[in-house]
Amino acid sequence: MNAEIIAVGSELLLGQIVNTNTRFISTKLAEIGINVFYHTVVGDNRKRFIDAVKIAEARADLIIFTGGLGPTKDDLTKEALAEHLQMALVHDEEALLMIQDFFAKRGHGMTENNKKQALVLEGSHVLSNLHGMAPGMFLTLHRKNYLLLPGPPMEMEPMFVDYAIPLLSSDSTITSRVLRFYGIGEAELETRILDLLESQTDPTIAPLASDGEVTLRLTTKNPNVQFATKKLDEIEAKITDRVGDFLYGYDSTSLMEEVCKLLKKENLTISAAESFTGGLFQQELTAIPGVSAVFPGGIVSYSNLVKMQVLGVEAEIIRDHGVVSEECALSMARSVRQLFHTDIGVSFTGVAGPDELEGKSVGTVFIGFSFQDGRAFTQMLQLGLTRNSNRIRAVKQACSILLKKCIY
Amino acid sequence: MNAEIIAVGSELLLGQIVNTNTRFISTKLAEIGINVFYHTVVGDNRKRFIDAVKIAEARADLIIFTGGLGPTKDDLTKEALAEHLQMALVHDEEALLMIQDFFAKRGHGMTENNKKQALVLEGSHVLSNLHGMAPGMFLTLHRKNYLLLPGPPMEMEPMFVDYAIPLLSSDSTITSRVLRFYGIGEAELETRILDLLESQTDPTIAPLASDGEVTLRLTTKNPNVQFATKKLDEIEAKITDRVGDFLYGYDSTSLMEEVCKLLKKENLTISAAESFTGGLFQQELTAIPGVSAVFPGGIVSYSNLVKMQVLGVEAEIIRDHGVVSEECALSMARSVRQLFHTDIGVSFTGVAGPDELEGKSVGTVFIGFSFQDGRAFTQMLQLGLTRNSNRIRAVKQACSILLKKCIY
Repeated sequence: MNAEIIAVGSELLLGQIVNTNTRFISTKLAEIGINVFYHTVVGDNRKRFIDAVKIAEARADLIIFTGGLGPTKDDLTKEALAEHLQMALVHDEEALLMIQDFFAKRGHGMTENNKKQALVLEGSHVLSNLHGMAPGMFLTLHRKNYLLLPGPPMEMEPMFVDYAIPLLSSDSTITSRVLRFYGIGEAELETRILDLLESQTDPTIAPLASDGEVTLRLTTKNPNVQFATKKLDEIEAKITDRVGDFLYGYDSTSLMEEVCKLLKKENLTISAAESFTGGLFQQELTAIPGVSAVFPGGIVSYSNLVKMQVLGVEAEIIRDHGVVSEECALSMARSVRQLFHTDIGVSFTGVAGPDELEGKSVGTVFIGFSFQDGRAFTQMLQLGLTRNSNRIRAVKQACSILLKKCIY
Repeated sequence: MNAEIIAVGSELLLGQIVNTNTRFISTKLAEIGINVFYHTVVGDNRKRFIDAVKIAEARADLIIFTGGLGPTKDDLTKEALAEHLQMALVHDEEALLMIQDFFAKRGHGMTENNKKQALVLEGSHVLSNLHGMAPGMFLTLHRKNYLLLPGPPMEMEPMFVDYAIPLLSSDSTITSRVLRFYGIGEAELETRILDLLESQTDPTIAPLASDGEVTLRLTTKNPNVQFATKKLDEIEAKITDRVGDFLYGYDSTSLMEEVCKLLKKENLTISAAESFTGGLFQQELTAIPGVSAVFPGGIVSYSNLVKMQVLGVEAEIIRDHGVVSEECALSMARSVRQLFHTDIGVSFTGVAGPDELEGKSVGTVFIGFSFQDGRAFTQMLQLGLTRNSNRIRAVKQACSILLKKCIY
């Protein structure tokens, strides 16, 4: 079975929102071995929508729609599909009750246009919406499968996982594994494993670069999971033989998650003093559930006064070396470690942009590290990207260093 | 002229990355009045790629490709397009020099596969890549326009803005304005302005909901900008007459940017004490350039010990009321305001999830506010969303309150 995903909404064509739904659905389909050959986005226009459905019917067995099931005038997915398939729309009693209940619980009055959301394609399998009002639908007609999902991610994602995946799960088994690398460019990595890339057909090896990281997705099709795993192990061993130094994790992990895992395993705690990253390191760390075991807190020391008065950096250091300096980074890391009584202190000071600071160019960054055992060091980076990229890269670089230097 | 955007890459179909490029290009095309009717994503497969190009040629005047220009084996955009259009690929001397220069500057050796990036469609207009290696291309053939852009956003975005937009800019002028609302649901807002939505054809009014916010995009087509602006002003006045209480800003602003603007205008400073939001408020605030005028810093007080020892929350408050309480939120806000010598202190304490805390359910949140002038209050929220959504919503809610209560 192969699938096409059609996201519906003029807001996507206008660039008002990013199409994260299609990405989410694609990830889940890959996991259950359904190939996706095309993504399509079409606006709130009946004719162009039906044209897109016809094209999809010619090249896919399963067509997944997301969006256009809401209460407003421009939501047309089920109406236009009903017209195209020559089917009727009927009120689903259960969905209507859920919608009434939804409003009652929140103490809001129900506006009339919300009733439209309980209309479903006659004879379709209705999927409950536990986080909103518009139900989903699944139906098979003339050997084609149609799945209709709401647009808001908070409604679509649980509906897709809980109700649609069980309907769609197929027999063919794909086993895949993603190897994650940091500190090596895509072309360099590919050059080092070129013979493997060229000779391998099963497992396939697909490289991808983004935001300073490179991943390799290894994929094999085999109903025997043990055999498939063995094949992936073999090719992974060949790859890590060449570029294993840069491998930091597998699948959907992140550098920060690996840092968190390592700290837990080693029973170490960490605190952070952030200047130009403004809390990004701590925000990413605390996005991970259960982080309180390793992270008591930290400080955003944005101004020089806070660096001195709250954190305890010596005024002389700032006067003699500036805040964007090795000396200041070291003092910040040591001070935050002492103030928060942790095993490790990490600090970020730099020029995020758009303007220069202390005569240092945008993208000049110092990351400081201070350990309970007395070790202390800094790393200077010269990034020069955009304000946001500079912050993201600095946090990734700190994670990469922590993974290598926490334990010695 | 109408356009279709084709993003190329199996990593998109596998859900490994989000298609932010198509969104970026769409936004810019909307600004210069080029309609986009479809987005397509196709993988690194020659036949399916050419099929997608044929479909696009039948429904668009301008086809914009992004991705597949890189050095690796699976990058096929220009090769497959050359085959389809029966054109030759030739080495562009200037691009080759830039690639060699790119490696020289970074002190890396140039791998052989990187030379492939200097190949361009013969006779095409070559667009320089100032942030990477693969150049872009533009050509017109049989009345169809083809624009080829690289995949990495850092390379594609400046190339598109600096070189492609001037080539594409058309005569028809679209004037649009986005009204941003917070604190009202999409259906409720639509009900209140239903007659306007139903009767208006120019300007058009397009509602969109996301992450607790609703926007209305007003769009009018008119070569006379003054006249167009007047028409937008008129319809905006009718809308704000009904739902103006919930309007917080225009176009691409955010609640946080509005907070930052207001603080600057009123010469007020702010600090934050964040528990379950873990630095998210401060990270968003410091993402805005020039924020140092209003924000000296703050604290991430994740553990109870840090709340007491570093921030100064009284132990009795935590013992008697718990950390997820009105009392603790108030104390955190007051303490951080005093510690950082700011006019305003804001605090976040709550249960982010996935687990309950102190017998309080996931999504229970207290936001505290303390002002220099003596005012202090809290707001309780009962969110119950995912860990990440709970954090995002709490920060937005705090911004919304700050916009209303900073000045009185």
